[in-house]
Amino acid sequence: MLLETINSPEDLKKIPADQLETLASELRDELLRVVSQNGGHLSSNLGVVELTIALHRVFSSPQDSLIFDVGHQSYVHKLLTGRRETFETLRQYGGVSGFPRMEESPHDAFGCGHSSTSISAAVGIAAANRLAGREDYTVAVIGDGAFTGGMAYEALNNCAGNDRLIIILNDNTMSIARNVGAMDTYLNRFRNSAKYFRFKNRVKRVFQRIPLIGKGLVAVCKRIKTWLRHRLVRENLFEHLGLTYYGPLDGNDEALLETVLREAKQDGRCSVIHVCTRKGKGYPYAEERPDVFHGVGKFDPSTGVPVAKPAEEASYSDRFGEALCELAEQDPAICAITAAMPDGTGLNDFRERFPERFFDVGIAEEHAVTFACGLASKGYKPVFAVYSTFAQRAYDQLLHDCALQNLPIVLALDRAGLVGPDGATHHGVFDAAFLGQLPGFTLYAPNSAEELRECLKKALSSGKPAAIRYPKGAEGEETPGQFTSYGSDGSYGDLYAADFGEDPDLALLTYGRLTENVCRAAELLLSKGIHTRVIRMVKLFPWEEDRMASLSDLLNPVRTVCFYEEGVRAGGVGERLFARLAETGSVGGKTLRLRAIEGDVPLHGSNEKLFEELGFLPEQISAFVEEIHV
Amino acid sequence: MLLETINSPEDLKKIPADQLETLASELRDELLRVVSQNGGHLSSNLGVVELTIALHRVFSSPQDSLIFDVGHQSYVHKLLTGRRETFETLRQYGGVSGFPRMEESPHDAFGCGHSSTSISAAVGIAAANRLAGREDYTVAVIGDGAFTGGMAYEALNNCAGNDRLIIILNDNTMSIARNVGAMDTYLNRFRNSAKYFRFKNRVKRVFQRIPLIGKGLVAVCKRIKTWLRHRLVRENLFEHLGLTYYGPLDGNDEALLETVLREAKQDGRCSVIHVCTRKGKGYPYAEERPDVFHGVGKFDPSTGVPVAKPAEEASYSDRFGEALCELAEQDPAICAITAAMPDGTGLNDFRERFPERFFDVGIAEEHAVTFACGLASKGYKPVFAVYSTFAQRAYDQLLHDCALQNLPIVLALDRAGLVGPDGATHHGVFDAAFLGQLPGFTLYAPNSAEELRECLKKALSSGKPAAIRYPKGAEGEETPGQFTSYGSDGSYGDLYAADFGEDPDLALLTYGRLTENVCRAAELLLSKGIHTRVIRMVKLFPWEEDRMASLSDLLNPVRTVCFYEEGVRAGGVGERLFARLAETGSVGGKTLRLRAIEGDVPLHGSNEKLFEELGFLPEQISAFVEEIHV
Repeated sequence: MLLETINSPEDLKKIPADQLETLASELRDELLRVVSQNGGHLSSNLGVVELTIALHRVFSSPQDSLIFDVGHQSYVHKLLTGRRETFETLRQYGGVSGFPRMEESPHDAFGCGHSSTSISAAVGIAAANRLAGREDYTVAVIGDGAFTGGMAYEALNNCAGNDRLIIILNDNTMSIARNVGAMDTYLNRFRNSAKYFRFKNRVKRVFQRIPLIGKGLVAVCKRIKTWLRHRLVRENLFEHLGLTYYGPLDGNDEALLETVLREAKQDGRCSVIHVCTRKGKGYPYAEERPDVFHGVGKFDPSTGVPVAKPAEEASYSDRFGEALCELAEQDPAICAITAAMPDGTGLNDFRERFPERFFDVGIAEEHAVTFACGLASKGYKPVFAVYSTFAQRAYDQLLHDCALQNLPIVLALDRAGLVGPDGATHHGVFDAAFLGQLPGFTLYAPNSAEELRECLKKALSSGKPAAIRYPKGAEGEETPGQFTSYGSDGSYGDLYAADFGEDPDLALLTYGRLTENVCRAAELLLSKGIHTRVIRMVKLFPWEEDRMASLSDLLNPVRTVCFYEEGVRAGGVGERLFARLAETGSVGGKTLRLRAIEGDVPLHGSNEKLFEELGFLPEQISAFVEEIHV
Repeated sequence: MLLETINSPEDLKKIPADQLETLASELRDELLRVVSQNGGHLSSNLGVVELTIALHRVFSSPQDSLIFDVGHQSYVHKLLTGRRETFETLRQYGGVSGFPRMEESPHDAFGCGHSSTSISAAVGIAAANRLAGREDYTVAVIGDGAFTGGMAYEALNNCAGNDRLIIILNDNTMSIARNVGAMDTYLNRFRNSAKYFRFKNRVKRVFQRIPLIGKGLVAVCKRIKTWLRHRLVRENLFEHLGLTYYGPLDGNDEALLETVLREAKQDGRCSVIHVCTRKGKGYPYAEERPDVFHGVGKFDPSTGVPVAKPAEEASYSDRFGEALCELAEQDPAICAITAAMPDGTGLNDFRERFPERFFDVGIAEEHAVTFACGLASKGYKPVFAVYSTFAQRAYDQLLHDCALQNLPIVLALDRAGLVGPDGATHHGVFDAAFLGQLPGFTLYAPNSAEELRECLKKALSSGKPAAIRYPKGAEGEETPGQFTSYGSDGSYGDLYAADFGEDPDLALLTYGRLTENVCRAAELLLSKGIHTRVIRMVKLFPWEEDRMASLSDLLNPVRTVCFYEEGVRAGGVGERLFARLAETGSVGGKTLRLRAIEGDVPLHGSNEKLFEELGFLPEQISAFVEEIHV
């Protein structure tokens, strides 16, 4: 095995060129072996094997900084930079992260998980190198999908003049789903014009070779060169922005990549190298369905078939999509918006059934929100389905364009709460905190698909901005306990309570998925003779007076109150409610405790493991409560 | 007066063309009269007089939607859409807002205040019109400065195919300060190439006239046309993105503007009309120094000289700039970053003295933060000076690129708290709430320029992400009271208390600028025999154990605790602290109250008026406290 001899990029440089194909093949085998076991991102990593080899042969990490945008395509990079032996712990608790992490290795020049950040970080690193007088290179690898994020463009606008800064546009003609937007149409013209660009690069080289002798001649020659270039060579977007452009190249041709990378390196000016890679390359099942193998669970590598429970229940995403279609059938004002995730957010059916009312805006969450506000300002009811963690990117749009203007858009926050192996950058644990600040926003946390549907109905008919948060995956086991609705409207209430044992003098408060564990803890406590009232919130805010009064009544008889929250403590539901209880004088003489995510956000691993780390398992909850309820 | 006859855009359409110059002149006089009285945005409004007239003559607001990006250039629009008589209440409490507000008029199609949102909103409105089968037009007016915001690009990427959507690129070669970045260099080429574009438009028209007869011929002809156009006509950025481009035009030539607007209107396809306007047009002082007259206070229109206290103290911004220069003199790792606001944030001196370490990235707050993170990852100490309200735009960058990676950047949050006449979109009242959620962030709220310097020192030497918030304007009057430092380190502490009267059994907690009013309230209370302990926080979070213990000790003897916060209640410092006190059992038997911004964000008006609305004046504070402290 060649791969076994590589413990650092320096080892890679020693491999003779004619053996690189073998190495690429070994890397693909290793990717397939580990990802089919652990789940993870397959297609994108299979696509960048040659590119990553070439980068590490031409540049010298970690002196030179290699930055992977989003970062799910960094597996090959990890395998080549000293993490080969630990790679099979990929995405597991305590193991190698599925994304670059600066703490994990000096070769991970910048950590990430969200899209479109790499060029900004690279410009910063290049500036630092310049200030320090270092001649190191900075390379950002960004996909054409991530390129629709506005931040990439803000950074491009600040690139020109940064020497030794190289941007690799890794063009695989798709982000996760099919690409959208004008930029994609634009890039498509390049993809089909390799010949033209070969000609153009030849012309460029000719002009670069014209010798410039004597000070006086320089300016004149330069002007002639510029004039001729402008006449002969059409400029593209990147050149408009002052960057040198190479491409498009076959991104799976390692030798070609090395040649062009060395050329760009030697040239030294800030450049864009446009490479076309094939997602899923080398694994027929993934080449055929790169979307399916973008992010996968465990599967059988010999057949490409997922190893999953055969009759798996529909996910929350699916159930959300069904509910939205049903409502849209009745109400022609309902629209659906996604930021490049129609599949992940369950909107595929909606797209097929209501194509005019379906909008995929690309990876562009900010635009998505304000676009939705535009629709809402004209009486439409837009629902933006987005992973909780990506909604963070539109904080100011939600505040400035939605809340301050009181425009009734609905956010369907998928993947709220912990998301297991995707880790810190992907956990949806901030939504309750940041949405809570926005004037007039309502947040719902349904605990079943049926309840999700009811919340969606309420949100759409409220005429106010609202969000609904629900976790990744399917509904959990049925929650024990006989819950009664308190406070507000309709058959589906906003506040529920169930007593485990009579006359409880302990209350556990929670919402969403954590309700199950809290109820199981209440069962454990009951078996020990401790009677518990479990209070479950569906509407997390705002708190109307009558519902607040109901809550006070429910808490009145107990002397211990413990709030469990699958989200950050700071500014979350628990803190805000405790403050309110303190103000209303409802806490005198009671013991109050809040258990939420404090300090560092949990890393990757199974949710079970992460819950354990946070003390969220039923036995841990019951043990903690026993300790404080004295 | 012609202007007096115009109560709606319909009246404007009746004015004969030869009288429009007179009207423009009257509008300029009115702008000058009111802005010199009330303060406001002058240069940009003087620049768009002809453009706004032309827009309202060609389009029919409010059926057609006119959207002004940022919106500070909407004064002429307001004067022409029924707000002429109330215009002299501009920016005053209860008066006409300095920005578009949907609640103010149906002619304000979309509210704003922040930059780069107009195209997204316009795409949404255009989509709504399409879905509703309406043939109304949607026009977004966006400056070249706002064009550096990535969100504008996300929206542009989604424009193609939206008929009756027209984007006016209002190019005045500057945002607030001089423009920066590659896009500006790019636009500059257009500005100087009017002749080229005239030729190009001619060529285009010729090709459009080639008749296409017979089904078979169509495809062939189209291909030939495309090929010829590509050969003959270089495409620009907007055309790359699938939009029809007109320009550049003289944006102060009303007749020309009308002609081209009608052409674009008739064509109906999504288009960009590039107009070059002159900031400050028609008022010599403003033409000469458009930056000075961008946003101004009261001034004498006959001389252009500000009507201000002659020996006005240096502002917090100035004092921040001085302090940063002093520190940068000692420490070569310190860098300064601005998003197009070197002047407003006090960085002009830094730019002159340390040009290599100064970075103006354009209106691009997201990029600014991640760029800073790149610098920090290589050991530099970047300070991003930004208005509190604009920092909101980089929430996810602060979370994902800074906090999760523990990169020590420093935010200098200028204009924190209420900003008076700029109103709801500009108040810096969310920072404590949203920064508080970010793991590892420290937030300081100094209450004097001297303390600001100390906080800056601490932040820069902490090796952790930190922010310092300070208000618009200069230090207030000297705060009464003898404050003693409690808890933490150094001669400048993080927690202070002053007793007004012996053995107080009432505590008022606060931070920042509000301290003065709270102390004055304590004086009033003392005069009524109520003894008060005022507790002032400098470090708002995190709360270390020892400081929390000091606070508990300070609160121990009192039975009423009232927290005053010049920021939103939801997730703010007060709520978080109350929750913590409730958990530590420090509130039993005490009366707790939190006074902060709840519900709607205050609109525009003097800070004095807004403070009154919030109950923040000394007499109001003392009256409220008397009521609860029974």
